[in-house]
Amino acid sequence: MKGEFSLIETYFTPLAKYHPASLNLSDDAALLAPPAGAELVITKDAISAGVHFIGDEPPSLIAKKLLRVNLSDLAAMGATPMLYFLALMLPKDTPENWIKDFAQGLAEDQKEFSIHLAGGDTTATQGGLSLSLTAIGSVPTGKALRRNGAKPGDNVYVSGTLGDAALGLSHKDDSYLRQRYLLPQPQLALGEKLRGIAHACMDISDGLVQDLGHICRASNVSARIERALLPLSPAASRFPEAYEAALSGGDDYELLFTASPEQDITIRALSTELQLPITRIGTVGSGSGVHVVDENGNPVTIASGGYQHF
Amino acid sequence: MKGEFSLIETYFTPLAKYHPASLNLSDDAALLAPPAGAELVITKDAISAGVHFIGDEPPSLIAKKLLRVNLSDLAAMGATPMLYFLALMLPKDTPENWIKDFAQGLAEDQKEFSIHLAGGDTTATQGGLSLSLTAIGSVPTGKALRRNGAKPGDNVYVSGTLGDAALGLSHKDDSYLRQRYLLPQPQLALGEKLRGIAHACMDISDGLVQDLGHICRASNVSARIERALLPLSPAASRFPEAYEAALSGGDDYELLFTASPEQDITIRALSTELQLPITRIGTVGSGSGVHVVDENGNPVTIASGGYQHF
Repeated sequence: MKGEFSLIETYFTPLAKYHPASLNLSDDAALLAPPAGAELVITKDAISAGVHFIGDEPPSLIAKKLLRVNLSDLAAMGATPMLYFLALMLPKDTPENWIKDFAQGLAEDQKEFSIHLAGGDTTATQGGLSLSLTAIGSVPTGKALRRNGAKPGDNVYVSGTLGDAALGLSHKDDSYLRQRYLLPQPQLALGEKLRGIAHACMDISDGLVQDLGHICRASNVSARIERALLPLSPAASRFPEAYEAALSGGDDYELLFTASPEQDITIRALSTELQLPITRIGTVGSGSGVHVVDENGNPVTIASGGYQHF
Repeated sequence: MKGEFSLIETYFTPLAKYHPASLNLSDDAALLAPPAGAELVITKDAISAGVHFIGDEPPSLIAKKLLRVNLSDLAAMGATPMLYFLALMLPKDTPENWIKDFAQGLAEDQKEFSIHLAGGDTTATQGGLSLSLTAIGSVPTGKALRRNGAKPGDNVYVSGTLGDAALGLSHKDDSYLRQRYLLPQPQLALGEKLRGIAHACMDISDGLVQDLGHICRASNVSARIERALLPLSPAASRFPEAYEAALSGGDDYELLFTASPEQDITIRALSTELQLPITRIGTVGSGSGVHVVDENGNPVTIASGGYQHF
């Protein structure tokens, strides 16, 4: 493999040339003049071979997943992507072609999501491949979507369909579900549109029930989910465990939010405008906890509590 | 080991409670209102067991080194520390005590350097321990120290002493040198004071000659270093390879900067004020390259070109 500086020059400097904050990766750090009237939203996620990805995916796909899980955090806060910083911890025998393909994936997603590399670090590791990415976005001051604003009486909504990614992990032969696991779609346009509409918002990375539990605790409310309302894809519906996956499966990266019932018409219009399903799946109440009920209003017991990384 | 959320709650939320941007780690991302009249300086460095640290150091020391190498990048740009984001990629069998001690090290250095945890990610890894940290600082708009401003006629200066860290890696029995390797001192106060004084600045992480080469290329100048002027610690001077270590050894994290000769008196006064040696080691010229000369003005051949991470 080429030396560190040569690798950076060849594959990463081109990714940084479109944003002045990067200083073309030629200084010790990036230098960002914050946009006027805006706050910065900053998130950092890490993924490791054998834990968050299988390891034999095309490097471009690993790059995109890493970038997209961070973009999904920006979407959850209602932010517009600006910059990212990458730490690439590579086994010493990583072929140069791997890095080339990885950078190609980043280049494609930079274009798709209007975000630019601004700095980072490339180092060797004695273990497996580890990757960490810090993404920075901007949101008009005071308009960030938080988890702590849900109010009793709110509707609970989700974008897209649920459970696909978890099913894609266990049913490797289904190309649709597989793709949903490998290449999540950060709902950035929806996040931006929900500024001033959603009372609370987050992305579903650890499973609906667990993540909605975070909103309930932060907002000091409870939530009631009607299982029959959960949006399933046609591909997911074929599996008997589809509802379980929709309730507890992670990695969907759809947005989960609450809003006043008066906003329901606006939210339906948003769904049409964005050509993105947005489904009301329940309501917010007083008290605490996430309660799932079946068609007859009886409580549904959830087998697993969502994904924990340990 | 406890679950992910419990670990974050127990050990990392307390580190985040002193800065509002962290949102107490309870949202998808941090939310930073940028200070008025300032630009943000953002850096990201990663370290891995067996590569950047030996692996059996006390976890608190690993935490401090990780934070300090990033703080050194902020110092090099003349920035004042604000926030950091941490990605902790842990082997599955990591004992909870390890995490506790690691967090304790962070807590101590947060106090020492006035920086606060604002977010991050804790994940499992199948390989060894990997860590990545993103640090954010601020600098008055237009005042950041860059690498590209060195001018022919400038003096070249370094802070502290050189070669200690490299010697500390090979001579494990010398506690002073060992400490210099394990626990670098980011020169933040000097970086802030050099705003408006230094023409070019960076920190020495890969070795003096290699890093000065970065300044020369960015500034389109050459540099001439007088070996006899290199500042060596008493501990380093005992070793025959001391000058070699000072020229090519990495990990010193001292500041390397150039400034006009008219600033020499100011810089000497700074040295007294900060109680930090600042030594003139050479001059900037036209042309390109870094040239080291001995006591008789003859060129010195450098055995190794500095540290590359592959």
